[in-house]
Amino acid sequence: MNSALTPLELRHRIRAGQYTGNTSGCAPGFVQCNLMILPADWADEFLRFCTLNPKPCPLIGVSDTAGSPMMTALGEDIDIRTDLPNYRVFENGKLVKTVPDIRADWRDDLVVFAIGCSFSFEEALLADGLEIRNISEGKNVPMYRTNIECQPTARFTGNMVVSMRPMLAKDAIRAVQICTRFPSVHGAPVHLGDPALIGITDINAPDYGDSVSIHPGELPVFWACGVTPQNVVEQSRPPFCITHSPGDMLVTDLRNSQLAVL
Amino acid sequence: MNSALTPLELRHRIRAGQYTGNTSGCAPGFVQCNLMILPADWADEFLRFCTLNPKPCPLIGVSDTAGSPMMTALGEDIDIRTDLPNYRVFENGKLVKTVPDIRADWRDDLVVFAIGCSFSFEEALLADGLEIRNISEGKNVPMYRTNIECQPTARFTGNMVVSMRPMLAKDAIRAVQICTRFPSVHGAPVHLGDPALIGITDINAPDYGDSVSIHPGELPVFWACGVTPQNVVEQSRPPFCITHSPGDMLVTDLRNSQLAVL
Repeated sequence: MNSALTPLELRHRIRAGQYTGNTSGCAPGFVQCNLMILPADWADEFLRFCTLNPKPCPLIGVSDTAGSPMMTALGEDIDIRTDLPNYRVFENGKLVKTVPDIRADWRDDLVVFAIGCSFSFEEALLADGLEIRNISEGKNVPMYRTNIECQPTARFTGNMVVSMRPMLAKDAIRAVQICTRFPSVHGAPVHLGDPALIGITDINAPDYGDSVSIHPGELPVFWACGVTPQNVVEQSRPPFCITHSPGDMLVTDLRNSQLAVL
Repeated sequence: MNSALTPLELRHRIRAGQYTGNTSGCAPGFVQCNLMILPADWADEFLRFCTLNPKPCPLIGVSDTAGSPMMTALGEDIDIRTDLPNYRVFENGKLVKTVPDIRADWRDDLVVFAIGCSFSFEEALLADGLEIRNISEGKNVPMYRTNIECQPTARFTGNMVVSMRPMLAKDAIRAVQICTRFPSVHGAPVHLGDPALIGITDINAPDYGDSVSIHPGELPVFWACGVTPQNVVEQSRPPFCITHSPGDMLVTDLRNSQLAVL
């Protein structure tokens, strides 16, 4: 039922507490975003971190002014405090609560960052006839911490998190072509083949999400992942920060096709 | 010295017997082509074979009329009978001689096909800072017969030949992006990773060319290869046919950059 809603209708239902599930498969065709909310005295540096690390942290939007919960460039009547199903609140890098609404946590100094999400490129891969294993198996995509260091700033430092989708080589090659068209949702894969080369010791034990089947002849294909900022926050320990809860994304009015550079 | 010559100057030296080596590294920036010359009663079917198999047989040019040795669309004053260093003459699918000049073998019913060559995409990969192992090691690229069947016509049938370049995964991903821009010189790789999946039993024993080193952490990356038509000719046994000798290509006046679709 939720796939028939427009993004605005979906956001209003979420705001009213009438939709509380994750947003996978919701509002097909429209861009969904990872969320990072930081106090102003950390926000400029986070913006620089995103600029230095465009593959894991491709920015789709930034709030106009500190303290404003509106994201007018991303869609009609978006109130970032209420329009996602669930949020995670961190203090000093530690998760302190998961809540369906952050109006009580809102502050006048908060800046909002909306970061591209793999849902957009998965849709493009499916539309081309490729199989996405986590979707076929009804699971969350497996994600792993790697030994690939992000370009650090003074306070933000940490390693890249990647998502993995197993594919036959010919499909992996096609996926590189398709994802290259979408730099603002992580772009082309960052690695394929041997997981150990990027510091993953057990492909069947992801650090986030679920394990998926890898069939004979398939290669694991790895994309930079929007969970990277959460990994970085845990290491960088800003005094306060709010993110989306994994899978509960900001659904925007932008179309996935509008993100294609070619 | 030959790298400083224009394509026309190089062709004239070859025609005069003053340059007899292979054309690797000659006239950088300009398109080199594989050659296939067939009698008219086989030529239309070969044209259809190329259309059905654009990755191994990307057509750059076809002679205007049967019997004409000129290829005006590909360059100034090209005489296809004299302007390559060495040719291979086949009868009934069997190599009968390798000669530096085919004026004595020329017939009024011959049709010339110029097919894209990996030299063009290797140049684009090098220009992007990637290493090409066969070039670093001063060898001919390793080529292998595969179990990938070409789309057959009534008389032309056979499996694809591929060339292989070992790369780190990140460079393989970049190579897919770069080569995708060049569909008329084989385009993106057709396979990467496990050679056995495309019927290659020993990566160190290529069917054509030389073996190259594969370093730890590298994947073999496979491209459709312009030697495929020679493999097909051996199986399809046309009564008469002439090809270039491997490495001794037709050097045209077209620029590699002109082949880029993006």
